[in-house]
Amino acid sequence: MKTYILKESQINKKTVDDLLSRSDEQNRNVEEAVSRILDRVRQEGDAALFSYTEAFDKVRLETLKVTPEEIQAGYDAVDPDFIETMVQARENITTYHEEQRADSWLKHFGPGIRLGQQITPIQRVGLYVPGGKAGYPSTVLMDAIPAKVAGVTSIAMITPPRKDGSLDPNILAAAKIAGIDEIYKVGGAQGIAALAYGTETIDPVYKIVGPGNIYVATAKKQVFGRVDIDMIAGPSEICIIADVKARPDFIAADLLSQAEHDEMASSMLITWSPSLAEAVKTSLYQQMDRLPRREIMKRSIEDNGKVFLVDSPAEATALSNLIAPEHLELMVEEPMEMLPSITNAGAIFLGAYTPEPIGDYFAGPNHTLPTSGTARFSSPLGVYDFVKRSSVLYYDRESLADVSRRVADFATREGFYSHANAIVIRFKDGKER
Amino acid sequence: MKTYILKESQINKKTVDDLLSRSDEQNRNVEEAVSRILDRVRQEGDAALFSYTEAFDKVRLETLKVTPEEIQAGYDAVDPDFIETMVQARENITTYHEEQRADSWLKHFGPGIRLGQQITPIQRVGLYVPGGKAGYPSTVLMDAIPAKVAGVTSIAMITPPRKDGSLDPNILAAAKIAGIDEIYKVGGAQGIAALAYGTETIDPVYKIVGPGNIYVATAKKQVFGRVDIDMIAGPSEICIIADVKARPDFIAADLLSQAEHDEMASSMLITWSPSLAEAVKTSLYQQMDRLPRREIMKRSIEDNGKVFLVDSPAEATALSNLIAPEHLELMVEEPMEMLPSITNAGAIFLGAYTPEPIGDYFAGPNHTLPTSGTARFSSPLGVYDFVKRSSVLYYDRESLADVSRRVADFATREGFYSHANAIVIRFKDGKER
Repeated sequence: MKTYILKESQINKKTVDDLLSRSDEQNRNVEEAVSRILDRVRQEGDAALFSYTEAFDKVRLETLKVTPEEIQAGYDAVDPDFIETMVQARENITTYHEEQRADSWLKHFGPGIRLGQQITPIQRVGLYVPGGKAGYPSTVLMDAIPAKVAGVTSIAMITPPRKDGSLDPNILAAAKIAGIDEIYKVGGAQGIAALAYGTETIDPVYKIVGPGNIYVATAKKQVFGRVDIDMIAGPSEICIIADVKARPDFIAADLLSQAEHDEMASSMLITWSPSLAEAVKTSLYQQMDRLPRREIMKRSIEDNGKVFLVDSPAEATALSNLIAPEHLELMVEEPMEMLPSITNAGAIFLGAYTPEPIGDYFAGPNHTLPTSGTARFSSPLGVYDFVKRSSVLYYDRESLADVSRRVADFATREGFYSHANAIVIRFKDGKER
Repeated sequence: MKTYILKESQINKKTVDDLLSRSDEQNRNVEEAVSRILDRVRQEGDAALFSYTEAFDKVRLETLKVTPEEIQAGYDAVDPDFIETMVQARENITTYHEEQRADSWLKHFGPGIRLGQQITPIQRVGLYVPGGKAGYPSTVLMDAIPAKVAGVTSIAMITPPRKDGSLDPNILAAAKIAGIDEIYKVGGAQGIAALAYGTETIDPVYKIVGPGNIYVATAKKQVFGRVDIDMIAGPSEICIIADVKARPDFIAADLLSQAEHDEMASSMLITWSPSLAEAVKTSLYQQMDRLPRREIMKRSIEDNGKVFLVDSPAEATALSNLIAPEHLELMVEEPMEMLPSITNAGAIFLGAYTPEPIGDYFAGPNHTLPTSGTARFSSPLGVYDFVKRSSVLYYDRESLADVSRRVADFATREGFYSHANAIVIRFKDGKER
């Protein structure tokens, strides 16, 4: 884990970009492979899905859709104590996301003028849930619940099957708990294609959300425009701002919780205390040695772990804002006072007893967060991602007459004569409807 | 203008998609050309911008940045009456968009638990304003004002220069009125590249908004991920739902106001009155003949103009929701009663005296709207496009202790042992900070 001593003059965008070397280089080979997959699913539908599933997931399926019996059997196979944990998590996630709901409005803006905004749920959305060695039931809850709270009535979930054609019972149980009953066994770029274009079995959706590997991310980017997507996820990141009184073992544990995701994950500490920095490093290597995913963590910490020594709390927040981390922990004595100076971060964890994993699973805020510095312009997945707005306008005859000359003149100056005509024709003959 | 008589059974997604034949086919030639332009700007910076501007805009520039004197001279060259019109438009646009502002919040979610959402403006954004024969000052106001209302402090506007190296005075005046003072003479894919990657002269931005031609749209799509973008705009569309009492000449005028945009624009009428449909067609051809852009309108109406005859108001709204038009006019006796049944539309204009052009220039709601059916999943440009949210979490020791077993268990079941470690380490030794 490298230490960088930064002077105030080095706390700028260029230094941060160089130090973090986040890349947005696209892989042309992946792009071409994905493009071929999308084309084939578009042309061949289900047949292409079965074929790709056999090639990539090593299983020959006969049907894509998960039956109600399979969902129930998955649910029944899960430890009731874990069911209870997921139910409590669902309640917390629901309660938090309900605060994000926004209401339609229509107001008077002068005599005879009413303007507003009508907010409606997206009618049908698709959720991607990755496969992998361990299933991720938390992803199901975090993807599905904001859509449900937004009022989306039609939700299709896709996830790649295991080699025996089954799905992880934890995934099925989480889907049942989240109220999802339309599930298909298909993953990868072919799954994204099915959601975007539709096949004989899968009706197309209007928006696709959820994390995935490079093929899934590239497919989402390619179908963007035809459908909406959430942000494209990069490697996981944590940044911890800590003062001299912070507990080194807590900090080290939290850094390791990101490092275990994969070798590309970034764990960063910003502090103005050299002694704390040393103590964190010591504790980090001690804890790492007794934890199961130590090989991944070691690689991640060596390649992407960083300690930034700065001169002051103000420089620490300035640096963090340039980094725009996915997860930010404020392990300082007065985190609430530091909070308003944070401008770019996916989620902000305050104080010694709010470790990042509480947000991954349980507290309520979403764990799908902007990575790779995209917190500079994007937000956690939320209810706002599953609604759209329509502007509403009403003018009566008098109020339109009052501004008709100016509006027609504006249109004419832009060369749009028929726009002007649509205004003036209403006042030509004095006849009213 | 073709008439389609639709039965209830035909009002479904497939029929609408076939009838409208909206295409999302990408042009591979354009994609490759744009990709080369992006690469070159990234490598060569300003030099590439000067070179492309000479090639595409036919002018050899010496500097890209517009001086304060040029802005002032542009403003001074504009008719004071039009300045007053733009100032009034700015006031209306500002007042409307202020209603879209959302506040940060932090609430108790149980003893020792506080959760919230911190909302902050994106720090720097880029606005694209197209060139073309007539300048579009309305685009400047509609792009810039929501960003200003959101609190964005750094805004860069780009627009292609005219052949003599100058900009349209109306564009400069609109920028001054909107409070934009950082303007660069560069357009096309090269302009988007400059905003996304930065050059010696232009600092990179975090989000790019604004309409443009196929090269601009393709460039925006290619830089998406590195920066955020607004939706990719397609041809303009209007759909009018009208009853038998509606004025055919008003409807015809409003259909023509879209048709004059370009040959690809779509003008659609939905009604259950065959006599109204005939009267609209008659009036439309009469008005078209005496309007300046008749050749464009004729082509647009012949290729993309459509009358849909349906059986009832309920079928009319169902059809409109499947079309998801950019602009929707409800020219019916009780438009307010029809409003709640509209689920997909960019902007909704109510009654006989709210013609679409009032929204393009003056009323206040944004004229940058989702086209080509994207109103099924996206929204008008708004203040919400220029802010991002950060989740905020705080647990005290007791509240974390209460749930620590369940959270650690959840993490372990997903195979994340260091996540579990970050929870349990806090309760190992009983020591508190």
